[in-house]
Amino acid sequence: MREVGIGIAGFGTVGGGVMSILRKHAGDIEARIGARIVVRRIALRDPEKERPVDVDRRLVTTRLDDLLSDPEIAVVVELIGGVDQAFDLVRGALARGKHVVTANKALLASRGEEIFRLAREKGVDVYYEAAVCGGVPIIRTLREALASDRINALLGIVNGTTNYILTAMAEKGEPIEKALAEAQRLGYAEADPTLDVSGGDAAQKLCVLAQLAFGARLRPQDVLTEGIMGLSPEDFRWGREFGYALKLLAVARRCGPANGGGTVDQIEARVHPAFIPAGSLLAGVRGAMNAVVLQSEALGPSMLYGQGAGAMPTGSAVVSDIIDLTRNILSGSPGRVPLPPEKPLVALRPHDEVRCAYYLHFSVKDEPGVLARTASRLAARRISIAAVEQHEQNDQGKPVPLVIVTHQAREADLRAAIVEIDHDPTTLAPTRLIRIENV
Amino acid sequence: MREVGIGIAGFGTVGGGVMSILRKHAGDIEARIGARIVVRRIALRDPEKERPVDVDRRLVTTRLDDLLSDPEIAVVVELIGGVDQAFDLVRGALARGKHVVTANKALLASRGEEIFRLAREKGVDVYYEAAVCGGVPIIRTLREALASDRINALLGIVNGTTNYILTAMAEKGEPIEKALAEAQRLGYAEADPTLDVSGGDAAQKLCVLAQLAFGARLRPQDVLTEGIMGLSPEDFRWGREFGYALKLLAVARRCGPANGGGTVDQIEARVHPAFIPAGSLLAGVRGAMNAVVLQSEALGPSMLYGQGAGAMPTGSAVVSDIIDLTRNILSGSPGRVPLPPEKPLVALRPHDEVRCAYYLHFSVKDEPGVLARTASRLAARRISIAAVEQHEQNDQGKPVPLVIVTHQAREADLRAAIVEIDHDPTTLAPTRLIRIENV
Repeated sequence: MREVGIGIAGFGTVGGGVMSILRKHAGDIEARIGARIVVRRIALRDPEKERPVDVDRRLVTTRLDDLLSDPEIAVVVELIGGVDQAFDLVRGALARGKHVVTANKALLASRGEEIFRLAREKGVDVYYEAAVCGGVPIIRTLREALASDRINALLGIVNGTTNYILTAMAEKGEPIEKALAEAQRLGYAEADPTLDVSGGDAAQKLCVLAQLAFGARLRPQDVLTEGIMGLSPEDFRWGREFGYALKLLAVARRCGPANGGGTVDQIEARVHPAFIPAGSLLAGVRGAMNAVVLQSEALGPSMLYGQGAGAMPTGSAVVSDIIDLTRNILSGSPGRVPLPPEKPLVALRPHDEVRCAYYLHFSVKDEPGVLARTASRLAARRISIAAVEQHEQNDQGKPVPLVIVTHQAREADLRAAIVEIDHDPTTLAPTRLIRIENV
Repeated sequence: MREVGIGIAGFGTVGGGVMSILRKHAGDIEARIGARIVVRRIALRDPEKERPVDVDRRLVTTRLDDLLSDPEIAVVVELIGGVDQAFDLVRGALARGKHVVTANKALLASRGEEIFRLAREKGVDVYYEAAVCGGVPIIRTLREALASDRINALLGIVNGTTNYILTAMAEKGEPIEKALAEAQRLGYAEADPTLDVSGGDAAQKLCVLAQLAFGARLRPQDVLTEGIMGLSPEDFRWGREFGYALKLLAVARRCGPANGGGTVDQIEARVHPAFIPAGSLLAGVRGAMNAVVLQSEALGPSMLYGQGAGAMPTGSAVVSDIIDLTRNILSGSPGRVPLPPEKPLVALRPHDEVRCAYYLHFSVKDEPGVLARTASRLAARRISIAAVEQHEQNDQGKPVPLVIVTHQAREADLRAAIVEIDHDPTTLAPTRLIRIENV
């Protein structure tokens, strides 16, 4: 039986998952591909550390170079994380004509361009299903299943940590600090949860997805990004009144050429908490699960759903990539599915120009004329109102909440209106804003 | 630019969709694959018929043989439907070394074995994404994304017609005849809806899916199949009381070797109305939409969702297959992803041995001791009860409903208990049975 040699760099959670799957399903995999996948080297930092998966000590090395210099290794699996060292490893592998599997979205979001250019030059493949949404086959679907179609929008719950926290807040009415602490206790959130709760992790993933879906070239800092730490149980309560669930969404949407004209389509790219219809499928995505909704011309709406993290789900995506590369190697067809295009096919729409529906929560003095004044401030900026709700306040002198749901409005107009309203002496606290997506 | 020639046989709804997608997205597709897909011949029955998509009259033929004899045609796209003529065409194409794309589940479910054998002999590919769930990339996902994993269960809403009807019944409380008539009026159901409402269409699809997911070799008649025509609005009302939605499910589940021992895993395979938890994602799949839930060892639960029928969704799946085959042809790698295994890897568990939870709706005399007698009849067959509900009956002498939800029980035991209970003089109408899946 033919053999394909692989080298694994990094042996944490995902590395352990990859190794167990390769072992446990070895028979099935061999039957499916007609070849044996052989792990030739495992590079890790601390060979003495206890690991959940036993490995043959003779395979272990602490030097990444041992993977690069081994001519029997055809595929390098990068699982070390971070950007700089991972980039050096991937560059080294590609330069030697080795194929690469990586689960590293930060690497792809920040250095993807160089990596893909080098892979193109060398005629080798870079696969990265595990970089976004763990085992959910979203990369493959964008790259192959929808190669016939034109995608108009992509909306996803792509960060399990924040979805776990928001689910707890929605279902138990908990404040965010408590839900976060619980997520940390259960291992769904890291000790330093910043990258997740800030939306930064989701923004990195959106960059990777938008490149495949639209041919966009985005860096994480290009994405309009708002995290979840400002959300309160009250937001969930208000949402329910209007029939909404509250999720951290990553959104990229094709929106035609620039308003002043232009030949190239623009896309919007944003990560932020969003109200979505409570009866929608996305609203039913609970806990640490991930899901991506695609809206495409021929297929219409579709959704992929599954576990976005964890040793085995992420490991299964890595192993599927290894299998795919093995098939390419055995059939002599590397480069069969081209890497993302070299030149971007779309431009980024400036965030100011993006149009969205908004939920606005004003804290105002309980006196006549406040609603009229607020409404006319919005009208002056061409923001039209879809619904208004004003709760009674029994506690004299305290601010009363005034909630307005708008129709689609331009972000810059809305921002300007809020600045004016927040300067008004009858406004007693900064206005809260949550975008609405009718997904 | 390189060209790959295709021939399309059958030019109804899906054929029109394929042609419009190939035209509309020609630029995108060429950019993605670096080659041009050229339609060389279109075989159709009536060249005079008006069609929504214009085609060059010089491409049109009424003879399927013209596709087979054209050396410029590398891929034959079979969209004529039915079994016999489609089989002849596919066999002819494979025999001449042409690759095949088909959307024909009936063909694959009944003659798949011969087709795959011939394709293997000739070293050509047979792709059939459009045969199951239209544009939802379930075939690709089973064949490639989950090649690393071991699937334990597959549960799907794979027939849009019946899901449309059941959604209308659930949401409007309509009797099935009315919901069916409405579905026919709107084009969701055919004039003769038998294949859909009997579960037969779903059973064909389950055969195709079970082969990919488990390496099963099933014929539609092997699948335990119950249709939806026996369902009443009352079933939906009772379901709601117990927190269930009611869907037509296709289920295949790995259940280990035979009870008496054996070396090969068995699977159960069934299509029937099923109660599922009202809060589950599958319960949120409304109207004519399709969805498949997979439960696999590494990835855990996952779901794919989208439009299962229609010119454009199905057409997009056909075109994705054409693109994939084109990539194989251009990179010289046909057979890169092997066809389903020649020998079945699992056996069918006899339906009598299948274990399931059941909802049982008895119509009984309103007199003391009926519940006790029914419960003891079930207990005698080792069927344990999870919940009981008995509504009061004001109308003297009429049967009262007694509803019992069971824990998992063996199908044969349950059937035997029902026969006994239905013979009891206090039972006034045949017992209704709906299976429960905690998906």
